[in-house]
Amino acid sequence: MDTGAGREPRQERSRATRARLLDAAVACLAERGAAGATVGAVAERAGVSRGAAQHHFPTREDLFLAALRYMLDNRGEELRRGAAAVPEGPGRTEAVVQMVVDAFSGVDFQAALQLWAAAASDPVLRERILPMEEQMGREVHRAAVDLLGADESAPGVRETVQATLDLARGLGLANLLADDGPRRRRIVRRWARVLDAELRGAPD
Amino acid sequence: MDTGAGREPRQERSRATRARLLDAAVACLAERGAAGATVGAVAERAGVSRGAAQHHFPTREDLFLAALRYMLDNRGEELRRGAAAVPEGPGRTEAVVQMVVDAFSGVDFQAALQLWAAAASDPVLRERILPMEEQMGREVHRAAVDLLGADESAPGVRETVQATLDLARGLGLANLLADDGPRRRRIVRRWARVLDAELRGAPD
Repeated sequence: MDTGAGREPRQERSRATRARLLDAAVACLAERGAAGATVGAVAERAGVSRGAAQHHFPTREDLFLAALRYMLDNRGEELRRGAAAVPEGPGRTEAVVQMVVDAFSGVDFQAALQLWAAAASDPVLRERILPMEEQMGREVHRAAVDLLGADESAPGVRETVQATLDLARGLGLANLLADDGPRRRRIVRRWARVLDAELRGAPD
Repeated sequence: MDTGAGREPRQERSRATRARLLDAAVACLAERGAAGATVGAVAERAGVSRGAAQHHFPTREDLFLAALRYMLDNRGEELRRGAAAVPEGPGRTEAVVQMVVDAFSGVDFQAALQLWAAAASDPVLRERILPMEEQMGREVHRAAVDLLGADESAPGVRETVQATLDLARGLGLANLLADDGPRRRRIVRRWARVLDAELRGAPD
């Protein structure tokens, strides 16, 4: 009789294997690009058999889309944690800008960029990743509006918040090839002052 | 006796062939990515024999670097033309922001992005394209400072101009997968107003 006692650990192992494969896929994408992130290379990096990897992700596209979904879920989780940690008071705006900039950086951003680059020449992949990217954009935008206490009914405020996300995306791209840390810090600080003036100053 | 009469047309033909190959390389990179932009594929697109292409560009790296140099030279030329056409008066800041945003868009930006993505996993390519990218960044920055009449000795002004370039880069990336035109227009207009307030307003 199957009481489920054997099934639980098996499901848990399967989940752990899947997570290991997704972590490896993100690392492979960031380091080698989409062309280098084959199911075989990802399986090897994860220390998982090729057969097990193919059981989870029959095609490379399955693997890519699951990796992007995994990155977006992690990002959502980070945003929620970051939002809870943003301080009240005068440093708040800068902390929020830093949080948005951080959302477009690191190995996840590098991996996502490789997927965007691959999608630029692959219409099927593009159609599938676009809605996921749009969802991510909406979530970061919503978090920024809430945390900044921005009133989007005031003219120009929506565009100013959107520009903050575009700036963060641009900083992420500038950071791809060279460590851009000190410059990023100065720009985050400056942008926070601009935002304070724009969002709390006189409307125009 | 070689009077040079035969050499001139030959050199001209060679220059024209080279330009056709570079145009084709930019198009191939933008549409197919670095993996798809082989010397053979570029030669075919340019309507040039493979042998002639290999004479001009013995390796794919030679072709990539020459294509990037070609894009940067074209960009410099566009900036000079754009600078001459920027109107005086109240629309000037918006025209300058639009010019900077345009510098990070179109097929050239898409091709360069594919090279950056490839360079992220290729340290040799990265070392060679970094100085070219830095030169491009300095040129756009210098043009923006001059055209905006920005006083970089005032605190924060340098960062505000740099942020304009990062914003433009981020808008270019957002435009990669989906046509982002109307949103870009709104953000350009908004950012121009912010810049006017920042650069002409009271220093902080």
